[in-house]
Amino acid sequence: MHTITTPETFKAHVQTLQKSPNYREPLGFGICRVDVGQLDRTKVLQATYPMVNWKENFGSAAVFLDTLQQSGASVETQGSEFIAPVTEAFLEHALAAFSPYIDEAHGEAHKNVQLILGIKEILNEQGFWPTQYRVVFLFEDSAPQSVEAVYLKLYALSLAKAPLRSLNLTGAFGKLHNVAWSGNTPIELAWLRANEIDLKLRNEFPVIDFVDKFPRFLQHIIPADNTRILEASKVRFGAQIHAGTTIMPGASYVNFNAGTTGTSMVEGRISSSAIVGDGTDVGGGASILGVLSGTDGNPITIGKNSLLGANCVCGIPLGDGCIIDAGIAVLEGTKFSVTVAERAKINEVNSVKLDKEVYKGKEIAGFNGIHFRQNSLTGEMSIGRSKREIKLNAELH
Amino acid sequence: MHTITTPETFKAHVQTLQKSPNYREPLGFGICRVDVGQLDRTKVLQATYPMVNWKENFGSAAVFLDTLQQSGASVETQGSEFIAPVTEAFLEHALAAFSPYIDEAHGEAHKNVQLILGIKEILNEQGFWPTQYRVVFLFEDSAPQSVEAVYLKLYALSLAKAPLRSLNLTGAFGKLHNVAWSGNTPIELAWLRANEIDLKLRNEFPVIDFVDKFPRFLQHIIPADNTRILEASKVRFGAQIHAGTTIMPGASYVNFNAGTTGTSMVEGRISSSAIVGDGTDVGGGASILGVLSGTDGNPITIGKNSLLGANCVCGIPLGDGCIIDAGIAVLEGTKFSVTVAERAKINEVNSVKLDKEVYKGKEIAGFNGIHFRQNSLTGEMSIGRSKREIKLNAELH
Amino acid sequence: MHTITTPETFKAHVQTLQKSPNYREPLGFGICRVDVGQLDRTKVLQATYPMVNWKENFGSAAVFLDTLQQSGASVETQGSEFIAPVTEAFLEHALAAFSPYIDEAHGEAHKNVQLILGIKEILNEQGFWPTQYRVVFLFEDSAPQSVEAVYLKLYALSLAKAPLRSLNLTGAFGKLHNVAWSGNTPIELAWLRANEIDLKLRNEFPVIDFVDKFPRFLQHIIPADNTRILEASKVRFGAQIHAGTTIMPGASYVNFNAGTTGTSMVEGRISSSAIVGDGTDVGGGASILGVLSGTDGNPITIGKNSLLGANCVCGIPLGDGCIIDAGIAVLEGTKFSVTVAERAKINEVNSVKLDKEVYKGKEIAGFNGIHFRQNSLTGEMSIGRSKREIKLNAELH
Repeated sequence: MHTITTPETFKAHVQTLQKSPNYREPLGFGICRVDVGQLDRTKVLQATYPMVNWKENFGSAAVFLDTLQQSGASVETQGSEFIAPVTEAFLEHALAAFSPYIDEAHGEAHKNVQLILGIKEILNEQGFWPTQYRVVFLFEDSAPQSVEAVYLKLYALSLAKAPLRSLNLTGAFGKLHNVAWSGNTPIELAWLRANEIDLKLRNEFPVIDFVDKFPRFLQHIIPADNTRILEASKVRFGAQIHAGTTIMPGASYVNFNAGTTGTSMVEGRISSSAIVGDGTDVGGGASILGVLSGTDGNPITIGKNSLLGANCVCGIPLGDGCIIDAGIAVLEGTKFSVTVAERAKINEVNSVKLDKEVYKGKEIAGFNGIHFRQNSLTGEMSIGRSKREIKLNAELH
Repeated sequence: MHTITTPETFKAHVQTLQKSPNYREPLGFGICRVDVGQLDRTKVLQATYPMVNWKENFGSAAVFLDTLQQSGASVETQGSEFIAPVTEAFLEHALAAFSPYIDEAHGEAHKNVQLILGIKEILNEQGFWPTQYRVVFLFEDSAPQSVEAVYLKLYALSLAKAPLRSLNLTGAFGKLHNVAWSGNTPIELAWLRANEIDLKLRNEFPVIDFVDKFPRFLQHIIPADNTRILEASKVRFGAQIHAGTTIMPGASYVNFNAGTTGTSMVEGRISSSAIVGDGTDVGGGASILGVLSGTDGNPITIGKNSLLGANCVCGIPLGDGCIIDAGIAVLEGTKFSVTVAERAKINEVNSVKLDKEVYKGKEIAGFNGIHFRQNSLTGEMSIGRSKREIKLNAELH
Repeated sequence: MHTITTPETFKAHVQTLQKSPNYREPLGFGICRVDVGQLDRTKVLQATYPMVNWKENFGSAAVFLDTLQQSGASVETQGSEFIAPVTEAFLEHALAAFSPYIDEAHGEAHKNVQLILGIKEILNEQGFWPTQYRVVFLFEDSAPQSVEAVYLKLYALSLAKAPLRSLNLTGAFGKLHNVAWSGNTPIELAWLRANEIDLKLRNEFPVIDFVDKFPRFLQHIIPADNTRILEASKVRFGAQIHAGTTIMPGASYVNFNAGTTGTSMVEGRISSSAIVGDGTDVGGGASILGVLSGTDGNPITIGKNSLLGANCVCGIPLGDGCIIDAGIAVLEGTKFSVTVAERAKINEVNSVKLDKEVYKGKEIAGFNGIHFRQNSLTGEMSIGRSKREIKLNAELH
């Protein structure tokens, strides 16, 4: 075991490690606690990361890879991901390497060291289950090969360490197991079935909150102080909820790989892969269609300072400062008339200029400052310039 | 006590019992554990069945009726239902009768025997409350007379042992008590009131998840491995959720005696008595009206492979391969125009033929292949032939 | 200590107290248990009142103010509110004063005395935390200055002791802390952050039900026996839910300072400050706009026996016996045509008479007997006389 005694020798040690052929800079890494199946102990049902490193803390990465090797793990860095169990030997080697930082590892400082110390303490208290904690490395953003890797990517999205829609989640659904969730505990459905008679007779049948492959956002993520999520079921893990966003409990839902990138009041649905910009409000029951339903796979982005009225449907991307009136559906094929006067006002805030009298929804996808409405005496759908201010982009002038 | 020693003598014994005047073939039967009132111990608040027999396992029925009689219960099979407490004597007699099957009663085999063994084990461990477990027989499908009978019928629906809308639930609401549910435990509101001061001062006021007469589906039913219910509150007990269905948490709800009969993505409301066919998706916020609200008591059936767009309202039955566009309301009185060309295409996939230019919703209830839409420039509602494929029924050709 | 021995001396004692310059008649008062921050023990996260006095029980108020003074608290009645910790001395003095009622303080009788006895018992059993219980007085309906005062007002609204929209809640949002709620326990987000590593490693991360400044209605209020709230997240504390109301779990939500004043079936949203009258049903996904979204700060009142169809939007006040058809949006600026014949029928049930051919929503706000609909062949929105009966007010004739 190689005990490092000063920050200087630690830094030198890391530099050496990072030059070694065994080192590869990871995209993300972390140590997780896994929940395994009640019947099938080899099945990982959930991976909980107390700390996620994403394009950062490469010194800790180098130390972890090295100490895994030293502790006997056969480290493989050429694949897209690598997982190893946390062993007692790994803990000892890691503590030796992190030795100069142990005393100051609390609060916001040296969280990877805190993690090692925390597991060590649990080991001392409770004894040890070698497969309960795992070191997980992601070297490339290819299709995830393990439950641990899927969770690491969902964490990166939900912690806003990776932008929405930026990660390869191909096959993620297939990797996750569909389970019954009782609080934070995933339970195999087959285990419930095998024990149904006994559990029900003894009044010990667990309270099942939901059945899904994904946990909920609030099971893994602590939101910002000014974020409100009025009902945990309304945000799936893998969603991104920006500080200052409020998610109301009526008809709202935010799916994974979807969410807000600024302050928003959300009372409607932000479906899979949909992104809502800063200052944009999603009215009660409003529905932004997702790639899994209704948009032919084109993900919807909505700009800043827009407003989706109650019970409207938004099936196209919107720019900044748009309004969809309550109760109307704006789809790719919906036709909207526009007057010459309104067209001129719309053109002032867009680089692509309108010159026709009728537009289909998909033709004005992403335009700024559009107000979508329906004439209540004729039923005609039309667009005009919304009264919402738009910060003009340089490219327009 | 009459101990049966071989499967052959068991079968002969059952045949004899089934010929006796005391035997009557039940519609359904089972043994349940009941939760009673905290204040009124005679009030049954919930009946939990670990195993439901529905038009099946008549041998076990005969044994149960006989052993009840032997153990001193005054068995009455002429009424529509019969309930008796599980007593120690009943358990002994039943075990004697089931003796040849005891060794093999595990896993999927002999669940009624497992149930008897399970209660016996609890009795041995904990002592015995004679009224906690009850044997329940339903001989006819008339209006349920007890909480236990209502639950047995709701189980039959939720386990898909009885088709939706096939059972007499007259007066079921009146039989059930409105209670506060804390996890799986029903609590009398009057008990909460009587203990409010003490519970609140001691910080022991229970977490109340909901107040209703019905429990939730997931409190009693273990769904199929490929079924997802992303929030337990969204499905009432008594609903039927077919394998492969997903219930999203946004604006969805499935009431009792309603549900899916195939694979469906459900993001909207399936109101009481509404049935959704295989492959039909219910978009975000879509509302299928129920017999208790909006349909004049005519329950709505929707065929296969149809699509209800986001925030649409469906107030009429639909056939196969229909589409309702997002945001529009299709009610009995809504008028729809149809062109000659579209009429011809619709007629190809329906046995009743269209020949007018305008139809009210109720006139085209149950038709196949209809696409309901609204012209965005004129506000006119129209129908045409949807692009969805329909498996033609033999009767059409 | 001044022990009162008979009801007569108690009454005389109270009369004396109420004439003293130290007495001031409170608007409301009560004793609450407070939950304080895990990190900041001076921060009140929640105040739970087992019993709320609102414009009532002034005798107990006089006794509480006097015994606080006697027990050494520096009582201040000139401000809008006053809070003092419950001390052992206060309990002793109060018990001495309430002495003639102690034996009969159970069930519905003498709840303030029960409260004192209850705290005394807990003190005897568990020892004492002087700041856990607090006596709270509200003397004026001005902007609340404390968490305890905000809660007392929300209780008054939710218990229907004060009418909706009748209380000054200015700044209430600012007084409450945004916290994570696990069951009935509020948890500081900063505490979760500070302990995230340890909680997650030990599988002790709490189940977070929601993150909000307000708790839920059912955490504090026991509804009437015929009230159903099918999902606790659907009603915020501070809402008023009248006996006989049903809140369904689909797309519904009732915000604080909003609710029902009679029997209603609610399957949609009753936004902040909206009030729904007796017999009025809010259909699945229907949205009543609130002062915080969409109504320019004008709160919406809906009269009796009205019907909001599924997925409609209501942005104006309605009178009695109105109908909004499913799926349509009735906003302040929406134009509605009306025929001469329908106008005459509408005028029969309203004191203000219609005489134009087209009305904007805001011009017919609060009218009785209006049926709002959209012509399905032309898209024209119109109003007519609904078929719903209206109890005519005297003023009309």
